[in-house]
Amino acid sequence: MLLSIKVKTARQGLHSITEKIATEISKRPNSDGLCTLFLQHTSASLLIQENYDDSARRDLEKWLNRLVPQGDSIYTHTLEGPDDMPAHIKTMLTAIQISIPFGAGKLLLGTWQGIYLWEHRHSEANRKIIMHLSFDQ
Amino acid sequence: MLLSIKVKTARQGLHSITEKIATEISKRPNSDGLCTLFLQHTSASLLIQENYDDSARRDLEKWLNRLVPQGDSIYTHTLEGPDDMPAHIKTMLTAIQISIPFGAGKLLLGTWQGIYLWEHRHSEANRKIIMHLSFDQ
Amino acid sequence: MLLSIKVKTARQGLHSITEKIATEISKRPNSDGLCTLFLQHTSASLLIQENYDDSARRDLEKWLNRLVPQGDSIYTHTLEGPDDMPAHIKTMLTAIQISIPFGAGKLLLGTWQGIYLWEHRHSEANRKIIMHLSFDQ
Repeated sequence: MLLSIKVKTARQGLHSITEKIATEISKRPNSDGLCTLFLQHTSASLLIQENYDDSARRDLEKWLNRLVPQGDSIYTHTLEGPDDMPAHIKTMLTAIQISIPFGAGKLLLGTWQGIYLWEHRHSEANRKIIMHLSFDQ
Repeated sequence: MLLSIKVKTARQGLHSITEKIATEISKRPNSDGLCTLFLQHTSASLLIQENYDDSARRDLEKWLNRLVPQGDSIYTHTLEGPDDMPAHIKTMLTAIQISIPFGAGKLLLGTWQGIYLWEHRHSEANRKIIMHLSFDQ
Repeated sequence: MLLSIKVKTARQGLHSITEKIATEISKRPNSDGLCTLFLQHTSASLLIQENYDDSARRDLEKWLNRLVPQGDSIYTHTLEGPDDMPAHIKTMLTAIQISIPFGAGKLLLGTWQGIYLWEHRHSEANRKIIMHLSFDQ
């Protein structure tokens, strides 16, 4: 089963999409299966990380921004702005696809796991995730 | 089909889980399909890497420990200990989910591929992997 | 359904495999489902990235070559040549497995997404990808 999830991002950073995904899964309360999220972009990522403490997520962002700074003289692909090439590199180092098992209509996430769309560009953007559900028989 | 795999880790490092996973798959000797492993944690990873030479795996660990050291002044999330924030970053840079095809009850790994749970914390931990099997018809 | 895809790489770098994969999917024009690509190697990766501008892909390669150089004194695993340990590290930081949904016989990639096999060794190599297709009912 194919669904399409739209996420409007306001700025660079982690946007929680756990609720959005969990809601879709909960519509089939008796189903087990696998939920695959596929992000159709090359300058944003999908990340499963610590859902409790904001400071952990902020440190992830700061660390990656330091590893992949804007204005690096190695970049030749600069036409689309100073945040474009860092965004591609950050996407390369993280994931654009995650598959999460579900049981009885619930995502089988760990207690401290949340699902995030990580916007790597500075300006707001409309991001699209294809959600594929396969159901066990 | 959903299964739960428990792994007790004794210390930071790569723990082979190839046998554990292969054994589950071998219980369905006539089946083809897809095995998805999903780790329910944010400070440990799943890695498929070189299964032959210990030195390659040790170099992976040393390299990542140097890229993501403890005690980096950028960290503000330090309440859970000096190995906690590096563990989140290492998890962000690697994977917590892998899907591996199987055929006739055998994981279709390459000759030199082993499956590892990578514990990023120093102390022992009880880690849980959800294993989802889908079978071809 | 299991298929095997062979890719002969001539040198280090990104080799487009979008056409190869799309062609297989197009043979089932009425099918929806999930296509999982699993690379059976530990020194090459699968990457979905910008398919339009060569300069973006070249910058990805230059950036990763700088982060993971040959001849780093940290390496002890050097028997298989100076490009071997960097290749393992690059594989660790990227992906060897990607699942892509398809609808009506078409891969649901974003407009700017292409699928690449990233060869991390210098010499030519024969790489094998297991392709698993699951079909929605």
